[in-house]
Amino acid sequence: MTLPGLTEAFWAYERALMANDLDTLDRLFAPGPTTLRGDAAGLLVGHDAISAFRGGRGGAPARTIVETHVQVIDATHALVVAVTELASGGRGQQTQLWALQDQAWVVTAAHVSIRAAAFDPRIWRLVGDPLVPPAGTGHLDGETVAVKDLYAVAGQRVGAGNPAWLEHAEPEAVHAWAVQRLLDDGAAVRGISRTDEFAYSLAGTNAHYGTPPNPKAPHRISGGSSSGSASAVAMGHATIGLGTDTGGSIRVPAAYQGLWGIRTTHGAVNAEGVLPLSGSFDTVGWLTREPGLLARVGRSLLPADSAVPGDVVTVDALLALAEPAVASAVGVLAAGVATIDWPFDVAAMLPVFQTLQAYEAWQQHGAWVESRMDTLGADVRGRFERAATITAAEAAQAQGEVAGLRERIRAHLGDRVLLLPSASSAAPLVNDAAALDAVRTSTMQLTCIAGIGGLPAVGIPVTTADGLPAGACLVGPAGSDRALIALAEGFADRGHTQI
Amino acid sequence: MTLPGLTEAFWAYERALMANDLDTLDRLFAPGPTTLRGDAAGLLVGHDAISAFRGGRGGAPARTIVETHVQVIDATHALVVAVTELASGGRGQQTQLWALQDQAWVVTAAHVSIRAAAFDPRIWRLVGDPLVPPAGTGHLDGETVAVKDLYAVAGQRVGAGNPAWLEHAEPEAVHAWAVQRLLDDGAAVRGISRTDEFAYSLAGTNAHYGTPPNPKAPHRISGGSSSGSASAVAMGHATIGLGTDTGGSIRVPAAYQGLWGIRTTHGAVNAEGVLPLSGSFDTVGWLTREPGLLARVGRSLLPADSAVPGDVVTVDALLALAEPAVASAVGVLAAGVATIDWPFDVAAMLPVFQTLQAYEAWQQHGAWVESRMDTLGADVRGRFERAATITAAEAAQAQGEVAGLRERIRAHLGDRVLLLPSASSAAPLVNDAAALDAVRTSTMQLTCIAGIGGLPAVGIPVTTADGLPAGACLVGPAGSDRALIALAEGFADRGHTQI
Repeated sequence: MTLPGLTEAFWAYERALMANDLDTLDRLFAPGPTTLRGDAAGLLVGHDAISAFRGGRGGAPARTIVETHVQVIDATHALVVAVTELASGGRGQQTQLWALQDQAWVVTAAHVSIRAAAFDPRIWRLVGDPLVPPAGTGHLDGETVAVKDLYAVAGQRVGAGNPAWLEHAEPEAVHAWAVQRLLDDGAAVRGISRTDEFAYSLAGTNAHYGTPPNPKAPHRISGGSSSGSASAVAMGHATIGLGTDTGGSIRVPAAYQGLWGIRTTHGAVNAEGVLPLSGSFDTVGWLTREPGLLARVGRSLLPADSAVPGDVVTVDALLALAEPAVASAVGVLAAGVATIDWPFDVAAMLPVFQTLQAYEAWQQHGAWVESRMDTLGADVRGRFERAATITAAEAAQAQGEVAGLRERIRAHLGDRVLLLPSASSAAPLVNDAAALDAVRTSTMQLTCIAGIGGLPAVGIPVTTADGLPAGACLVGPAGSDRALIALAEGFADRGHTQI
Repeated sequence: MTLPGLTEAFWAYERALMANDLDTLDRLFAPGPTTLRGDAAGLLVGHDAISAFRGGRGGAPARTIVETHVQVIDATHALVVAVTELASGGRGQQTQLWALQDQAWVVTAAHVSIRAAAFDPRIWRLVGDPLVPPAGTGHLDGETVAVKDLYAVAGQRVGAGNPAWLEHAEPEAVHAWAVQRLLDDGAAVRGISRTDEFAYSLAGTNAHYGTPPNPKAPHRISGGSSSGSASAVAMGHATIGLGTDTGGSIRVPAAYQGLWGIRTTHGAVNAEGVLPLSGSFDTVGWLTREPGLLARVGRSLLPADSAVPGDVVTVDALLALAEPAVASAVGVLAAGVATIDWPFDVAAMLPVFQTLQAYEAWQQHGAWVESRMDTLGADVRGRFERAATITAAEAAQAQGEVAGLRERIRAHLGDRVLLLPSASSAAPLVNDAAALDAVRTSTMQLTCIAGIGGLPAVGIPVTTADGLPAGACLVGPAGSDRALIALAEGFADRGHTQI
């Protein structure tokens, strides 16, 4: 049973889809802001959003319709459910609500699903059941770890987010210290997760392996460089995302994906078996969905605290670095928190951080990278190219300035805990390179404070009035990591603006 | 905008789903045979099928609704699209068509999708991008291999489908010969795929890791024991499924999932690095979606042919072992093919095969299995328990009978190629243990012919009048493997009954 013209419209749509005939596809979807199209990447609302998506994807995978069911609703509406089969294997389903509008059949809502891929290579390089079983039992029994592809996993190579590096890497003989500790306490390694190349980015938009999905903010970037670990945790593929944070690589993806995360006190956690980027700032860190697990991982990786965090304070000039929606979500946590002055030039600190970071990155990777610039994505390549120009004298000066700033920041804060945004914005949309560039500087002006200070920083998920994930951050005294997590836990559920 | 009572019905459904309140869920889905519910496992048609599914799954995963969109169609119909978020992470979508029937709102069609899992542990134990890169280039460039978890992959353990075996296995030093050959010719190893325990089953219903999906026949078993390799290929996760065939472990999953497959001439392909089950019958085999690739893999693994296949013939008594729908689909290929007599007792051959297979399986695994019977699934355990009772004298007699039968079968067929069903039925429904038992004997009466004969057998996908995948099989002279594949290729597309 069907309706006049409906079958023809259905097959016209199918032909247009296979031919990637964008005009016909646009015409066969109802105009207006309420038209819907959903797939694994998320729900698109409105004809314009759907049209833009189609324009950018370069066609649908080849498929055949193997089964159709039509539910006629009334003279001008019918639901058509089709079972599809991809040419490359596996079946899917497509549900379409068709309406006769102005004498033409159009789709007002579509829901598309295809067979699951073997795995998502944007998130993972290797994944297993498990990849590495626990080495003991303890307070991490049953937990699963996504290990950023900078950490040694015995028997596996370190890929560092770059195919050329991976190709020449040798299998590691032993696990990185942090990996071994987690295994000893009962966790299993679920797999090896993607990273931005050499961890030298905050975006997660790896040029070779793609941008991992951000399930809480569909169609937006994951954040990086601990991008795969963050997405794995957000997707429920693993419970612990092991990563690193040099300039924000834990805090930024945590903010973008609504996760908890910690950048530890510089030097507090043994980084043996972790590929370095910039020794003055590199830290071990991790991400979780719940603060309780953030603390339990801390029991495995963190030494006993050597400092006690005091009052939480905030700084207007730092809140002001964030976009209003984020500042306002973080501001909810700041209610009742004292505001202190900030006798540092916010704009001047970042270049100092970046100079030393870049110099050290070149010392670390320059010899390898120099003849392989063409193997790098444009963004990371640009950073390494600038890094190559920094002189030893410039680096020495930056190092001195960092040391001075570290001392002054620590002295100014004392035992106080600084509350600030983890990143200056919510996650930019995928492919919106302009938005990414626009927020990078303001985000790093925020993240470099803990970096320069060598201080621990715990990311707390908050939600903006638009319903997007964002991050608040508590920066505590050096060596207060465990207590800082406990303090952050007290802020749970306080930062989710009602929508 | 909504309709009276609709919002209440939507939330009543959601509460019932979270409480697994089956009566309410049944009541809120429209009665009758046209009601639809689809998810990643396939489309269910009719209220009864949906109700049975719900009764068997033990509840839906915990989730929250994070976004809803209502398209009111008319006074008694509306589409409700909801974005869901699993408690364990990741988002999904639910599309429901609601209708007001007899003053009550009911769902007439639902389409549910949730976030992709990290990977499907029913198909894979380990999977990577790739797990092992190619070692050379050649006619398998770009192909990806699902390696049955009986083959050595350097650096990985062999799991054999049993967790206790896996736990005590040591990493392999070198690849199995067949794996190395595929790598040398340009293929990459996508991952290590599931097998029935010790390959001692034809069902694929591994008690520990679950039954891999069968995309061409949703809600039906995968077939085994090369179950993971077959599903990986059917799902498009890999292009080559490397497996083994002792008593049908390639041919049966190929038939059930609409794939091409080959069991090679006994002893023709080097089985170094493959965990044996029964040396008299074990063979290397593989599965593909296209016959051309079946042949290309043969170029890597098969020696030059030592025999030339002659006329194709068939045997009525063997066709009659299959269910009518399957016999009829295979019969399409048999059109114009001569029928020969079959001077063998079809029922008597299988016990001879099974006795020797069981004895050798016990010689191979008894010492390990004996104290670990409780680690085996019921079906495989039952087989090993019977295997333990076979005496050396019984085995010697079976061995003599197999040798005699092998000689007689080869003599009777000469250079002729026997066309017969690969399995006696299409894939039984998952959880229909009775159906599985019912077809096992007749299927093995068919498969044991090549097994006893030590002959190569190529599985050709056919489709029954009901639209289900089934398999035809060409059994050729020993050493004719390459030509047999070419011969089988000529039958492509001839066996798909129009539906």
